[in-house]
Amino acid sequence: MARPRSTRKPAAPSADVETAAPAAPIIVIGGDAAGMSAASAVKRRWPESHVIVFERSPYISYSMCGMPYWIGGVVQSADDLVALTVDRAREERDIDVRLHHDVVAIDRAAHTVAVRRLDTGEEFTHTYTKLIYATGARPARPPIRGIELPGVFALRSLTDAHAIQAFLAERKPKRAVVVGAGYIGLELVEALRARRISVHVVESLGQIMPNFDAEMVEGVREHLRDHGVHLHLNSRIEAIEQAGDALRLSVQTQAQGKGKPDPATRLAADLVLVATGVLPNSELAAAAGLELGASKALRVDAQMRTSDPDIFAAGDCVELTHLVTGEPTWIPLALAANKCGRIAGALGEADVFPGIVGTAVVKVFDYTLACTGLTEHAARAAGAWGAEGEAVGAVAIRADDRVGYYPGAAEIQTKLVFDLRDGRLLGGQIVGKAGVNKRIDILATALHARMTLAEIATLDLSYAPPYSPVYDPILVAAGEALEQVRG
Amino acid sequence: MARPRSTRKPAAPSADVETAAPAAPIIVIGGDAAGMSAASAVKRRWPESHVIVFERSPYISYSMCGMPYWIGGVVQSADDLVALTVDRAREERDIDVRLHHDVVAIDRAAHTVAVRRLDTGEEFTHTYTKLIYATGARPARPPIRGIELPGVFALRSLTDAHAIQAFLAERKPKRAVVVGAGYIGLELVEALRARRISVHVVESLGQIMPNFDAEMVEGVREHLRDHGVHLHLNSRIEAIEQAGDALRLSVQTQAQGKGKPDPATRLAADLVLVATGVLPNSELAAAAGLELGASKALRVDAQMRTSDPDIFAAGDCVELTHLVTGEPTWIPLALAANKCGRIAGALGEADVFPGIVGTAVVKVFDYTLACTGLTEHAARAAGAWGAEGEAVGAVAIRADDRVGYYPGAAEIQTKLVFDLRDGRLLGGQIVGKAGVNKRIDILATALHARMTLAEIATLDLSYAPPYSPVYDPILVAAGEALEQVRG
Repeated sequence: MARPRSTRKPAAPSADVETAAPAAPIIVIGGDAAGMSAASAVKRRWPESHVIVFERSPYISYSMCGMPYWIGGVVQSADDLVALTVDRAREERDIDVRLHHDVVAIDRAAHTVAVRRLDTGEEFTHTYTKLIYATGARPARPPIRGIELPGVFALRSLTDAHAIQAFLAERKPKRAVVVGAGYIGLELVEALRARRISVHVVESLGQIMPNFDAEMVEGVREHLRDHGVHLHLNSRIEAIEQAGDALRLSVQTQAQGKGKPDPATRLAADLVLVATGVLPNSELAAAAGLELGASKALRVDAQMRTSDPDIFAAGDCVELTHLVTGEPTWIPLALAANKCGRIAGALGEADVFPGIVGTAVVKVFDYTLACTGLTEHAARAAGAWGAEGEAVGAVAIRADDRVGYYPGAAEIQTKLVFDLRDGRLLGGQIVGKAGVNKRIDILATALHARMTLAEIATLDLSYAPPYSPVYDPILVAAGEALEQVRG
Repeated sequence: MARPRSTRKPAAPSADVETAAPAAPIIVIGGDAAGMSAASAVKRRWPESHVIVFERSPYISYSMCGMPYWIGGVVQSADDLVALTVDRAREERDIDVRLHHDVVAIDRAAHTVAVRRLDTGEEFTHTYTKLIYATGARPARPPIRGIELPGVFALRSLTDAHAIQAFLAERKPKRAVVVGAGYIGLELVEALRARRISVHVVESLGQIMPNFDAEMVEGVREHLRDHGVHLHLNSRIEAIEQAGDALRLSVQTQAQGKGKPDPATRLAADLVLVATGVLPNSELAAAAGLELGASKALRVDAQMRTSDPDIFAAGDCVELTHLVTGEPTWIPLALAANKCGRIAGALGEADVFPGIVGTAVVKVFDYTLACTGLTEHAARAAGAWGAEGEAVGAVAIRADDRVGYYPGAAEIQTKLVFDLRDGRLLGGQIVGKAGVNKRIDILATALHARMTLAEIATLDLSYAPPYSPVYDPILVAAGEALEQVRG
């Protein structure tokens, strides 16, 4: 790519007012992790370029993943969640950040975006040489009657978090319902329990944490009960109604077996938090004719280029190559959003991004749950391992995280999923109360390297009694899996 | 290899008495980690085989690495350190364990070993079909006048540990000197401080923990001082003398600079622990004409076969291929000893063992120190990266182990060593007070996969605020290193 035309620096970018539009800048839509990473990358590479970030909210570059800890009181201030302030972005990085600016259309032929100022209502168009699309994702709002009532919140943006905090401070709710038992849902459960709020969780599936195989999270389910959390699996909220100052929820639990459905359960709540997943903000891209994947997130190449060579995209609105399946996959996670933002900001001049393996870790009270690659149920469903997934093997073991005689040793569960034909690792899950954290990254690294079980079983991993058994649980599991492969 | 001849099972193997010699069993010399792993592997594969283990001490299969924790009182009983008792080895695994049996010669032509019973003085020879040599290592005893005095101990065997424990119980020493500031030395320092014994450490090199680069362990040196440990670097003990009930040590510190050597320091001590490394027990093999490497440990192939096709070897007495240098290397560590024992016990029918990367972790009070692969100084000295090591690059960073706003976040140091020409990782070191433990294994896995910095920088590692920053310190270090490679 040619070096972007250097444009004059924007005048007085420190105040949040519209400055005279310079000719043909690089425009970034969205000022969170991916967008600001991209903007910063452009400026590092081309310091003289003019980079405008249009962000519709009042905030940029905050830690979504930290918000449950602010709500739970572990983190004291919302300021702690902000990785880069608007002032620093403008002054230190010379990025022309425009808050309350909503991009409403992209005209690819004209190389312009149409922008609406949410604060003044003013609309204008702006030309771009290159456009970086980093609009992120938004909460899925299930079609529940009453979901728009006051006291019902989703948590995605810092605006949401402020609204929840204000509600907690003013209304001092005693009873909450969390809808969805995925990782955000369970982090919120912990946050609410830390505030001594009683919590019911309503999950439509038959297990918590659907990115784990069911048997791996049974202990966590018990642990939730030990922490006073009421769990309703196989259950849906049919309606939310106002009942005086409180909300009344009607919860329908699916009958397990052949009996009639159970009668709906009534739950009273002062607060409802909806955490039923997210959807990619791709409508604007779709309207401009950019290619989307099956997930409705944008298709990009390994340099984050969309189907339009002048438009790059990154973050929770794009699909990335899954290194295990080789397929474009939508797994919105913070690290990939940050990394791909940087790559998008290189405007085609960066290294290619190889892809993701979907590594994630979550704290649920005393438990740590971590996963990477494919679960057994995902691998069996994926099609690449036989129509019935018959080439998928799996081994799950329980073993101490450190030498059994060392104080604090705790049993952890380790599961490996693998290809029975060639012994290649497809995924791993580790769950327990100690030693889970970075252990999953050994498996993530093995997935990147396309390692086989035989290779994993011979890894020279660290050992000392305070930290690990001689044979790390990963080595033990790999050894057992290898026996299964060799049948 | 043909299936070994099945021999009759030994009569009544449960008592420690000489049974009538069956024809041509498989003999294992040494009953610790490698030897018992090998013996167990033979029996798993060939349940009808007769496997004799000759062990000269009264103990088998104990955790050397756990002994400092027993001495420090963290582990309550020596029994906790025993992974496999003699009774279980005999009864559950049908292994013919003979304690107090010292193999004094190997006659390769005759396929016999000469054995001396240390309890009765009796000598006899025994034939073998296959021999597994697993004699381990012994403490290096530096040529210090007085090192044989009572009160001076090394810690290698459970016999040593019992002797130290007895001395501690009976003599209640108040002042100790530890000779050597490697990992065993520092684990012993912590153990002695836990017993409120004052400790001086005398180390001949200019730094503690010589398997780390010097700048990585400066914080640990300060930390030792904070724990009341007196450190004498660049120092040697010239003599140990009896002085009444106590010992008097003369310590010579090498002048740093051009001045005259400092006068010798006199230290009074009730107890001296010598931890100046180990030497391979290879004399018996050498006398039998088996090939040794430059380290004086045995040369073996990837199936643990020595230069004699009927003799296998494993454990702390063998060299293994270093996966970074490709050279046979002697790094005696527990995991490799165990793994290679299993492979030796397959008598040529197992997978090949690819090699080691020398991953190690050690706890020193609140610090965790972990390393894998080559240090910068080792890589520069290795020759493979230029005569002056000019193709060696290194980056060291300091970064929080988790998101800075999350309680408990602690700064850790991460160092990567790499090949400047192609960006391949050569080694890594991580040091800090939290989050060090399994993080080093990400780098160990990357070394096994011969990953480059570009590959490491794109690893999809786990992230959540309680566990990691968005960009793990490893990713940050890899990014900086990559910039250095690209100059």
